[in-house]
Amino acid sequence: MIVEVSVVPVGTGETSVSSYVRAAVQVIEETDLEYQVNSMGTCIQGEWDEIFSTLKAVHDELAKMGCNRIVTTVKVDDRRDKFGSMDAKVAALEERL
Amino acid sequence: MIVEVSVVPVGTGETSVSSYVRAAVQVIEETDLEYQVNSMGTCIQGEWDEIFSTLKAVHDELAKMGCNRIVTTVKVDDRRDKFGSMDAKVAALEERL
Amino acid sequence: MIVEVSVVPVGTGETSVSSYVRAAVQVIEETDLEYQVNSMGTCIQGEWDEIFSTLKAVHDELAKMGCNRIVTTVKVDDRRDKFGSMDAKVAALEERL
Amino acid sequence: MIVEVSVVPVGTGETSVSSYVRAAVQVIEETDLEYQVNSMGTCIQGEWDEIFSTLKAVHDELAKMGCNRIVTTVKVDDRRDKFGSMDAKVAALEERL
Repeated sequence: MIVEVSVVPVGTGETSVSSYVRAAVQVIEETDLEYQVNSMGTCIQGEWDEIFSTLKAVHDELAKMGCNRIVTTVKVDDRRDKFGSMDAKVAALEERL
Repeated sequence: MIVEVSVVPVGTGETSVSSYVRAAVQVIEETDLEYQVNSMGTCIQGEWDEIFSTLKAVHDELAKMGCNRIVTTVKVDDRRDKFGSMDAKVAALEERL
Repeated sequence: MIVEVSVVPVGTGETSVSSYVRAAVQVIEETDLEYQVNSMGTCIQGEWDEIFSTLKAVHDELAKMGCNRIVTTVKVDDRRDKFGSMDAKVAALEERL
Repeated sequence: MIVEVSVVPVGTGETSVSSYVRAAVQVIEETDLEYQVNSMGTCIQGEWDEIFSTLKAVHDELAKMGCNRIVTTVKVDDRRDKFGSMDAKVAALEERL
């Protein structure tokens, strides 16, 4: 399964959110999940339970940093007929562009 | 916490996805979670673990119906300073429009 | 076409964003577009150009209110085989639940 | 402004959507917009009007390929206090990880 996640801390008074996004990526880094950061989110490859318990840990970490409200967008690509890795998906696109 | 979820079955050959969306809503209906259906998704109010285990059950149900690929968008509004219900959020908007 | 839009002002220092969401809905209200507010976003029915020029006006309005950064999620359901209204989509779900 | 877009053709009967995603990226490639493909979407850097007229052209292209329904998710990061490029955003994250 591949998931893309993007967190937005609300009400922090800071237009830059990179310290929070770094903290979020750090939580993901401490798992065994494969992930890839892009300019609008982070793609994560793994199984449902581990991914969503990690995202819960991300929210808890941002709350600890003082965020009173976290708005997160998650997009799930759950393919059951075959395993499609993050790299394979990008390669499938690029080979014929 | 309030979450909005929207599921898109991919590769079913059907332009209408309402039978799948109905099955998804049925899975949510069988929990104790409060939810509200709109024309682009379903808003659910509850706690992280129950919401995401329910969404996993939704994916499993659609897979049982024959979906080989399910693309789901989840938006999480996790407010920690106070509890904001779905109804209160809409009421806060409407009272001054 | 049906679009759901959700705006998040970043860096305002306010955990409640309802004044900004109200302003956004007010911009939509001033058009001829049909719309329905829910607890996580606003669904809008109409044609591509009018919808996206309205969303641009929403961003400009929030910038005028002092938002230096606006993070917006838009989900587009562009059905070409038949016209599906917001009400018809919800009715199709509810009739068999 | 940076936008991430992800298109899902519905009702095509194909679990793999890479031919459609390739066509979408091809439409973007033919503009002057900077873009970066990742495993869950494509990030595009530019101004509102050019980006959204390009996304309209993407929908028209997929409809020409036979898609009767296209579900697209767009996330907009519209920062008005300074210009933040796609590369700068990723660099800001990586420098301290």
